[in-house]
Amino acid sequence: MPSGEREARMAWSRITEPGDKTAFALVGERGAEAALAAVVEGTAPEAARLRLRLDTLDIEHDHRVRQKVRARVVIPGDEEWPAGLDDLEVPPHCLWVRGPEHLAEACERSAAVVGARSATAYGESTAGDIGAGLCERNFSVVSGAAFGIDGAAHRGALAVDGTTIAVLAGGVERPYPPSHRGLIERIGETGAVVSEVPPGCAPTRWRFLKRNRLIAAMTRGTVVVEAGLRSGSRSTATEATKLSRVVAAVPGPVTSMVSAGCHELIRSREAELVTDAAEVAELLGDVGRDLAPVKRGAERPGDGLGETESVVWSALPVRAAVGVEALALRTALAEREVVACLGRLQLQGLAHRESGGWRRPPRQRSG
Amino acid sequence: MPSGEREARMAWSRITEPGDKTAFALVGERGAEAALAAVVEGTAPEAARLRLRLDTLDIEHDHRVRQKVRARVVIPGDEEWPAGLDDLEVPPHCLWVRGPEHLAEACERSAAVVGARSATAYGESTAGDIGAGLCERNFSVVSGAAFGIDGAAHRGALAVDGTTIAVLAGGVERPYPPSHRGLIERIGETGAVVSEVPPGCAPTRWRFLKRNRLIAAMTRGTVVVEAGLRSGSRSTATEATKLSRVVAAVPGPVTSMVSAGCHELIRSREAELVTDAAEVAELLGDVGRDLAPVKRGAERPGDGLGETESVVWSALPVRAAVGVEALALRTALAEREVVACLGRLQLQGLAHRESGGWRRPPRQRSG
Repeated sequence: MPSGEREARMAWSRITEPGDKTAFALVGERGAEAALAAVVEGTAPEAARLRLRLDTLDIEHDHRVRQKVRARVVIPGDEEWPAGLDDLEVPPHCLWVRGPEHLAEACERSAAVVGARSATAYGESTAGDIGAGLCERNFSVVSGAAFGIDGAAHRGALAVDGTTIAVLAGGVERPYPPSHRGLIERIGETGAVVSEVPPGCAPTRWRFLKRNRLIAAMTRGTVVVEAGLRSGSRSTATEATKLSRVVAAVPGPVTSMVSAGCHELIRSREAELVTDAAEVAELLGDVGRDLAPVKRGAERPGDGLGETESVVWSALPVRAAVGVEALALRTALAEREVVACLGRLQLQGLAHRESGGWRRPPRQRSG
Repeated sequence: MPSGEREARMAWSRITEPGDKTAFALVGERGAEAALAAVVEGTAPEAARLRLRLDTLDIEHDHRVRQKVRARVVIPGDEEWPAGLDDLEVPPHCLWVRGPEHLAEACERSAAVVGARSATAYGESTAGDIGAGLCERNFSVVSGAAFGIDGAAHRGALAVDGTTIAVLAGGVERPYPPSHRGLIERIGETGAVVSEVPPGCAPTRWRFLKRNRLIAAMTRGTVVVEAGLRSGSRSTATEATKLSRVVAAVPGPVTSMVSAGCHELIRSREAELVTDAAEVAELLGDVGRDLAPVKRGAERPGDGLGETESVVWSALPVRAAVGVEALALRTALAEREVVACLGRLQLQGLAHRESGGWRRPPRQRSG
C-alpha cells in the first residue's frame, strides 16, 4: 500500500484520469492518503468505480519505473510545484518530471508557445524565432512537443541554450510523436519533460485535451503561432483565458488556413496580436521592464513639420531653384509667411538658398 | 468675375491649397461669393496672400477646361455632395468630378480600400478580392488610384462591374501615376474620378496628404490592406479614426515589412483585424443585415460531447472491440457509467457494438 502524501498522489494519478472532479474533491476533503485508504476500504463513494484500477495498482513497480526513467514526482506543497497549477478547476494530483530544470522557477517567467501540427514553413520559422527570442529575454518556453509549431518552439529555445519544458499527454518515458524522441530527450537533458499521467500511459485524445490545461496554467501566458479554426491549440488559448492568463496570437496570410484560428482569436479579442518575441515579452513580462521597442519606420526629411512649413517644403523644387514669389503662388501663402518658413526650413537643413532662389538641399527627395 | 455660389467655389479651389483653414473660415462666415468679393476688393484679411493666385484666376478658362475634360463641379448643398465631407475640419470648397456615378449615392454604402504602393503579390491579390467582394455586397470601393493596393482594389471592383471611385491628388484630367491612365479612364467611364483641386494642378506631396482625408471622410470606413510603418495609408486610417469612421486592417506575414503597418494599427486598437470582404461588410454595413458568416472548421466526430462521454469515446478502440470492463478500466469510470455512456454514444452514431464488445463505428477516427 502507498504510504505518505507523495506515494498516495502517485497512486491517485494511476487510478484516475486527468480532470476527474469527484476524485479531486475527495482528495481535497480528506487528504490524498486518507482518501486513498477510504477507496481501498470501500467506504468512499468513489470506491466502486475505481476498484478496477486500484486492483492493478503496484506502487513498488511504479517506483522502479520512476527510477528507471529517472523521473521524480512533484506534488503540491513541494518547492518545485508550479503555483499556477493551483488555479485549475481540477489540478493534477502530481507531476511526473524528467530533467534538471527546477519547475517552479522555470514557470515563474514562462510562455507557452503552441500551435498547429500541420504548420507551414512560415509558422515554424516564426515559432522558432519567438521561442529563441523569449529565451534570450530569460523566459522559459513551455509547449507540447507536437509536430509543427510545438516542435519548432522547443527547437528555437534549445538553439539558444534556453530553458524549455515539454508537457506530454502520455507518460514521460514515452515520447510522442515517436519521431520526436530525439527532441524530447534533448529537452529532458537540459530542461524538463512533464506529465500528469504515470509512466506507461498512452497519450489518448482525452489526455491531450487535459494536457493543454496544464500548459495554460503553468505559464504566464500562451502564444498561438498558427492554428486552424479547430486546432487543439485554441483549447489551450481558451483555457489560458479562463485562467486569466494573457493570450497572444501571431497573424499570417489571410489565405492560410492555419492562420485562420489566430485571426479569429484576435478578432474575438481573446488574443492580442503579436509579431515577435519582444512583443510577447512585453505582454507577459514585468510591467515597465519588458517594454518592446516601438516599431517605427526610418525618419524621413519633412517629417514632423507644421502645416505651413509642410506646404512650403512640399512646393520647393528638387532641382532648379525658384523665387519667393513663385513659392507664394504655389502655396497660396503670403510672401512674408513663405520667407519665414524658408528660414525655419533652412535651419533644419530642409531648404537650400542659391542665386536663383530656393530649392531643396541637394540629394533630398520627397517621399 | 465668378458669379454665384458654384463659380465662387470653383475660384476658391483655384486660389487656395487644400486644407486652408482661414480661407475655409472666411467662406463659412460670409458665403463663398461674398468672401471672394472681399478678397478681390482687398477688404478681407486674406486678400494680401491670395492676391497672386487671384491674379491668375480665369473663370472662363476654368469652365472651358471643365467642359473639355467633361468634369462637373459639385458643391455643398448639391444632392450629389457626399455628406461625410462635412465632418472634416476643413472640407473642400468643391469637388471636380468626372464619371457617371452619383457621388452621394455611391458614398452612402462605401468602403475605402487603401494601402502600400510597394505592395506584395499577396497584398494585391487580397485587395482585389476585397474590392470585388465589397462590390458584390453592394458597396462602392473608394481609393487613390496609386500603384499597389489602391490599383488592385479598383481593379477588383471593376472586374465584377462594381462601383469604384478614384480620388486624385492632382486634377481629374491628369492621371497619376501616368501608367495608371488606362485604369483611371475606366474608372471615369463607369464610376467617378474626383479631386478637390482644379484641372491643371499637379499632385504635390501636400495634396496627397490632404487627399487622404477626403477618402477617409467620403466613406463609411477604411480598410488598410498592406502598409509599411510609415505608409501614407496610415494617414488615411488616422483621419478615418478622427472622423469616427471604422478602420480595418488586413494581417499578413510578420516577416513582411508592408504588413507591419497593418499589425501596428491592429495592436494599437486603431483598426479591427479583417480577413475578407464579408468581415469588412459586417463592420461597415447595416447592423444585423451584413453579418459575416462565423468562421468555423468542419464538425468532427466527438465534438460537443460531455466530459464523461468524451472520456469513454476517447477510450473506444478504432478497430478491435473491447468489453465494458476494459473500458471501465481505461476510463476510471464505473461500469454502469460506461454502459450508460455507450448507449448515448451509440444513439449519436459514435459507438458501435459487435460480438467482442464496443468500438468506434467503422471509418471514424479521432482527431
